[in-house]
Amino acid sequence: MPKRTSKDIRNESRFALLRGLYSLGTATRQELAATTGLSFATISNIVGELVEVGVLVEAGREDSGGGRPVTRLKISPERGALVGVDIAETYIHVDVYDLALGVIGQAESELAIEENEPAALVRRVAGVIDEAASGAGMPRSRLLRAGVSLPGQVDPQRGVSVFAPNWDWHEVHIQALLSEAIGLPVDVDNPLRAIALSELWFGAGRLVNNVATVNLGTGVGAGLAIDGELVRGASNTAGEWGHTTLVFDGRLCRCGRHGCVEAYLGVPGLQQTMAEINAGHDLLTGDRQREFVSDVAKGLSDGDPDCVKLLEVTGRYFAAALGNLINFINPDHVSVLGWTAGIIGPELLKVTEKYLPREVLPSAGSAVRLGLSTVVGNSVTLGMATLALEGFLEQVGVPSRGPAARTAAAKRAGVVPANQAAGT
Amino acid sequence: MPKRTSKDIRNESRFALLRGLYSLGTATRQELAATTGLSFATISNIVGELVEVGVLVEAGREDSGGGRPVTRLKISPERGALVGVDIAETYIHVDVYDLALGVIGQAESELAIEENEPAALVRRVAGVIDEAASGAGMPRSRLLRAGVSLPGQVDPQRGVSVFAPNWDWHEVHIQALLSEAIGLPVDVDNPLRAIALSELWFGAGRLVNNVATVNLGTGVGAGLAIDGELVRGASNTAGEWGHTTLVFDGRLCRCGRHGCVEAYLGVPGLQQTMAEINAGHDLLTGDRQREFVSDVAKGLSDGDPDCVKLLEVTGRYFAAALGNLINFINPDHVSVLGWTAGIIGPELLKVTEKYLPREVLPSAGSAVRLGLSTVVGNSVTLGMATLALEGFLEQVGVPSRGPAARTAAAKRAGVVPANQAAGT
Ligand SMILES: [Zn+2]
Ligand SMILES: [Zn+2]
Repeated sequence: MPKRTSKDIRNESRFALLRGLYSLGTATRQELAATTGLSFATISNIVGELVEVGVLVEAGREDSGGGRPVTRLKISPERGALVGVDIAETYIHVDVYDLALGVIGQAESELAIEENEPAALVRRVAGVIDEAASGAGMPRSRLLRAGVSLPGQVDPQRGVSVFAPNWDWHEVHIQALLSEAIGLPVDVDNPLRAIALSELWFGAGRLVNNVATVNLGTGVGAGLAIDGELVRGASNTAGEWGHTTLVFDGRLCRCGRHGCVEAYLGVPGLQQTMAEINAGHDLLTGDRQREFVSDVAKGLSDGDPDCVKLLEVTGRYFAAALGNLINFINPDHVSVLGWTAGIIGPELLKVTEKYLPREVLPSAGSAVRLGLSTVVGNSVTLGMATLALEGFLEQVGVPSRGPAARTAAAKRAGVVPANQAAGT
Repeated sequence: MPKRTSKDIRNESRFALLRGLYSLGTATRQELAATTGLSFATISNIVGELVEVGVLVEAGREDSGGGRPVTRLKISPERGALVGVDIAETYIHVDVYDLALGVIGQAESELAIEENEPAALVRRVAGVIDEAASGAGMPRSRLLRAGVSLPGQVDPQRGVSVFAPNWDWHEVHIQALLSEAIGLPVDVDNPLRAIALSELWFGAGRLVNNVATVNLGTGVGAGLAIDGELVRGASNTAGEWGHTTLVFDGRLCRCGRHGCVEAYLGVPGLQQTMAEINAGHDLLTGDRQREFVSDVAKGLSDGDPDCVKLLEVTGRYFAAALGNLINFINPDHVSVLGWTAGIIGPELLKVTEKYLPREVLPSAGSAVRLGLSTVVGNSVTLGMATLALEGFLEQVGVPSRGPAARTAAAKRAGVVPANQAAGT
């Protein structure tokens, strides 16, 4: 991206506060100051703004030990709902979230690869959102904003799908199409951005600032957060660790390169490894990508030697590929998620951890922890809902007003700014 | 690293201003505001502080077109000198810089691998600094601070060499030893941090914010800057791209892993590739690592087919290794430096660029530019001098004073703060 010429400090502070509050559940201003490292005055200003737009509400008052009671704050679950959408090549998944980012409704629909016509696709998405919202008992009018994850290269600033190879999309103005079909403001981004955000706000990122979130499914990729900030890269495609070389001149990858990590750790890669172990294995019959991983899990628990071998070989590949990631960006934490990890994650990590020490430099290896992601639910829709929350706060005009304007607005709204009211 | 709990916003603005000023040479406050995106008020505050401690001086006044003259500012070359030190496994190199970060003196000394006793090593360093300073006609009293780059894992906060494998150092409190031997405040860091900083301040980073700086020498590594910030990682060892897998189960690397990038692109790797092409080649006689690359350059210009083959094979390796880096972090720019690049860089890049398109995803490939670094001189000592400048500014107490304290201090110093004096 072109050189950044300004930085909205106020916004960064606001998101630090919200991230802290999601982590704490409820908090006093003092606790938020302690968690975020922001000054009490800054916290009070931001709290005042968020109370004003109804995002924060009082969660009770408590004795401060010295006199005036202290207000405890929480994110208002009643303020309205955010929509998180994960459009993958084979399905559309929608979660409806309250503002506290708890799931209140969901729906899913299969998608055929040939359903790649943008106008038809967005109608399908709108239908799945309607289904999820009505399941949540949530009228359209209370939906605030939607975050939609799309495969391929996405430009969130322009709202464009720059390139989606599987759909043969080039420069599709998908944000406008979605917004019109859904009847809501929409943010678009790529799933690697979404999983990085959900891990940063709700997973390992609550404790440490350098987190790689590795997704294992049909495809393979990594969402990155460095120094507590989402890494987008120059064209919003950072994290394509799945398309880095593991085996020079190795297997042909669907991206056209040879020997990519994805060609060994994506599900078709696992199938190819199984074929190399035993080309006649039952698991390889038919076109059953989704069932394959479940069958491997069953084979492992039954002691099938070919499945054990598959796990061993795959663990070695995974250890080398993780070693690359760890040596290169020196993260505090690597979180593993994705549907493969959801089925054989514990077994795979156990084997991987056996090989990992020989793949990491001592300096980077001793700094990192590896584990399955602790984020509950769908990390892609959660991350997109987080982005939609950010967009909603912009939309309601929280940022960039001076103290005078803020006070005036608060008076109009009948709210006394926090920095002039609350205890201590 | 543990989760960051605060952020010195003032410091970030200050370094944005200095980085802008190094890029512009001289500038008015208005130009600095335009370059950095900071507000005019912020610029004026910081300029006032830097004028107060003598780091910024007037470079003239000019008509603003409307009345009062506008002050042009520059970094004072006379304020004193900074020392940048590059301690590698085989040499100590010292550059003495004025505050405008121009080189005013230098010295170098060979270092034997067995000279690994910390107390003796720091005496050697002090001697080389004395030689460089006296060559610059600079008395010790005018040296402000030294930045020292050390191989291995360095903890700059604690001033400790955590682990330096080639010297068998563990937890050596090198900063205190150096500071005592040199008689100056000292900052320590790792060369990958230094090259990233010098590229960020003086190279491609002047134009774009996501820059990887690739070092090709005996060893191989990359300094990273993302969103305009130096990437340190969890334990200050980010960037060890040299120790990521290029060939699964490939050549044994000196780090103990197999198939690392360094085992193919480091000079011993180039020698091994040459041995695979023609084990009896003249270039391989004797222990001549340094001369080997020069001889390859000569061979290339003479049309030696083995040297041409070496370049071709190495270019393919380099393209795949760069493809990994580009796909993973999606940089705007990859700068190549190091002594191998200094000798055969143009020829190597030409071959590499031939193979690179097949190694990058379209999304990341179209966003990136590749080129030899344009930073003049030694990037390691320059980066360390930049760190020493940051340390010096902390040391003289520029940060974290309110407007009242600043005005009082300025009055004591006989300087009128810029925000109350200069024309716009
Ligand atoms: Zn690939
Ligand atoms: Zn290595």
